[in-house]
Amino acid sequence: MSKKNVLIIGAGGVAKVVAHKCAQHNDVLGEIHIASRNIAKCEAIIGSIARKQNLKVPGTLQAHAVDALDVPALVALIQKIGVSMVLNLGSSFVNQTVLKACIEAGVAYLDTAIHEDPEKICETPPWYANYEWKHKDACAEKGVTAILGAGFDPGVVNAYAALACSEYFDSVDSIDILDVNAGSHGKYFATNFDPEINFREFTGQVWTWQNREWTSNSMFEVKLTRDFPVVGEQSLYLTGHDEIHSLSQNLDVPNVRFWMGFGEHYINVFTVLKNLGLLSEKPVTTAEGQSIVPLKVVKAVLPDPASLAPAYTGKTCIGDLVKGVKDGQPKEAFFYNICDHAENYAEVESQAISYTAGVPAVAAALLIADGTWDVGKMVNVEELPPKPFLTKLSELGLTTFMQDAEGERQLF
Amino acid sequence: MSKKNVLIIGAGGVAKVVAHKCAQHNDVLGEIHIASRNIAKCEAIIGSIARKQNLKVPGTLQAHAVDALDVPALVALIQKIGVSMVLNLGSSFVNQTVLKACIEAGVAYLDTAIHEDPEKICETPPWYANYEWKHKDACAEKGVTAILGAGFDPGVVNAYAALACSEYFDSVDSIDILDVNAGSHGKYFATNFDPEINFREFTGQVWTWQNREWTSNSMFEVKLTRDFPVVGEQSLYLTGHDEIHSLSQNLDVPNVRFWMGFGEHYINVFTVLKNLGLLSEKPVTTAEGQSIVPLKVVKAVLPDPASLAPAYTGKTCIGDLVKGVKDGQPKEAFFYNICDHAENYAEVESQAISYTAGVPAVAAALLIADGTWDVGKMVNVEELPPKPFLTKLSELGLTTFMQDAEGERQLF
Repeated sequence: MSKKNVLIIGAGGVAKVVAHKCAQHNDVLGEIHIASRNIAKCEAIIGSIARKQNLKVPGTLQAHAVDALDVPALVALIQKIGVSMVLNLGSSFVNQTVLKACIEAGVAYLDTAIHEDPEKICETPPWYANYEWKHKDACAEKGVTAILGAGFDPGVVNAYAALACSEYFDSVDSIDILDVNAGSHGKYFATNFDPEINFREFTGQVWTWQNREWTSNSMFEVKLTRDFPVVGEQSLYLTGHDEIHSLSQNLDVPNVRFWMGFGEHYINVFTVLKNLGLLSEKPVTTAEGQSIVPLKVVKAVLPDPASLAPAYTGKTCIGDLVKGVKDGQPKEAFFYNICDHAENYAEVESQAISYTAGVPAVAAALLIADGTWDVGKMVNVEELPPKPFLTKLSELGLTTFMQDAEGERQLF
Repeated sequence: MSKKNVLIIGAGGVAKVVAHKCAQHNDVLGEIHIASRNIAKCEAIIGSIARKQNLKVPGTLQAHAVDALDVPALVALIQKIGVSMVLNLGSSFVNQTVLKACIEAGVAYLDTAIHEDPEKICETPPWYANYEWKHKDACAEKGVTAILGAGFDPGVVNAYAALACSEYFDSVDSIDILDVNAGSHGKYFATNFDPEINFREFTGQVWTWQNREWTSNSMFEVKLTRDFPVVGEQSLYLTGHDEIHSLSQNLDVPNVRFWMGFGEHYINVFTVLKNLGLLSEKPVTTAEGQSIVPLKVVKAVLPDPASLAPAYTGKTCIGDLVKGVKDGQPKEAFFYNICDHAENYAEVESQAISYTAGVPAVAAALLIADGTWDVGKMVNVEELPPKPFLTKLSELGLTTFMQDAEGERQLF
């Protein structure tokens, strides 16, 4: 099997990285199309690729306007341009429609984050079962390859989990996914994604898989402090996250948790805004009678996340802390990657948070293209062989390290 | 001389205290009229007075609607109801028009805060000379008594300064006015006055009189920590305030400063809001294209200051720390008052911040009524004899203490 010509949906920070990386491998991937509601943002990405000379061989690199909530329009675009693969990097609200269009058109589908309903905040599990997994049968019937959550987290961390279970442990008791951004954007305060999406993650309950049951906590209730390779001591907080659901279903592991690193300053600003009611999505009325959603005002005064990348310095560290048993002995290992904001910006004009999310999607696309991961059904990343993925990832710029009792060493 | 029948302008927290206290002395003051743009707020104050049975003898207690920026309307009201005294407790923006109306009608005038131009934030000195003092000649020509700044600060603290200079020191080197609210309203965050007015005081430069010169600092730049009588250790910050200007001109004192107490929590919330741009009076545009002034949104989400009084607990401590020389020896004394939020609420349904500002205005009104302070010209409080004022204040519920090398004792 071999699949060529890709359509990238979306024109945000992650889509930009994906477009750059696809362009660097257009000898394999063929035509590169970028579609978004706002065609000017697609054109800007093409301009960035030209500026960085990232198109490997002469070929198609084209922008399109499309409403990703409009299934017939998506199908028509896919058929018109003749792609065999759609890389969905649009907002979390469009997964269902893009997936339906791919099934209808019979092309491969890939995304990096779970579907969200704009009306629901911090939805209760089972997340994938509420949305994407309802299309499993349709994918299998039509032989459509659909790889869910192929970013870093979810994505690479799922592959780390699969690798740990298959190669390094006889049994695993816990997988703690640790996500630290030890970088600095130099602003008083900013969010790395759209503030509305960013704050939505942290205003409700957080769900984790503990003792084979869903467990609920409030945000910033449970804290973990750990000394990390390269980035040093960091504080993280128990958070809900997409991959907890699929890992809890696909791997026989009693505890799957996700921890996000936050500095004291971020938590302080967040807490003040939340307690004052300024993160509310419900409109308030001013003394002058104007009705306004406070969160939209906060978004208006914060820096545009896209403006942060040029000045971003420092590193990210994301990985899986795995605890279990090997050869009858207790064992602990941390599988991780380190990424550098400024290096990423020099290569693709994006910071490391977008880079780590986008590069794995292109590694997965290359594995679909060469047949390795072109499985003709819907899967999450942990259901696929991890070694080809981690090898490809290393070639693309994201290396994998392991830290255990014997020290730190590069695996891929 | 004897003056009767008073018109209260305004229907906010301080006006409410003034109305209660005037009612408690209507045997001396005669008819009590309350006027505001919103007549319902005046009626609510009359309801509160009835509920607390604070009208001493049967008599007139009447609400009126008036626009305090409309001089002819004010003159017509003064003449129609036949008052001889106007107590201006309206917003800081109406001093000039109310004063003009009093001069035109030939009745006594009194206020508790300096005039402000709504377009100017943290204006540079000389403050009184920019507004009220321009009417000094007109008051003298018509024999109109106009007492400026007859609240607590300005007001009582000016009388403390005059008392210190005339009775307790041969020469004074510095007067530091210290204003501490050690009370708690039980909310996550709230301002004690209209948030717009409250934050205006702290967003720009602060001006103080040091070494006989105007000195500028930024807000929260200079901190003072001191152990106070009753309320214990408190942190205060150098702030600009009305009375610094008049005291610097009327007393021969090289250093006059004002310090406001702030808790760490208030400063933290203020700093977050200010640094994010949420205290800005300049409109921003949301992603949806709506234009909105961020400060008005902050005001909309904060508790209504008027709603705080019933649950307010704790005490205020406001006074003058005076340093100088007496009988050839260095001397230091703190003249101060302690006020209790819950006691004030029990008496007049207002917290201590409104109480301390309103009661002195009524003490001054009683001294105008009996002729003691009916001077037929425009003056600031430090230009009047302090002892009758502090004696009257003590009768009305605000006692004066002094703390020096010999300990603490009640003076009035």
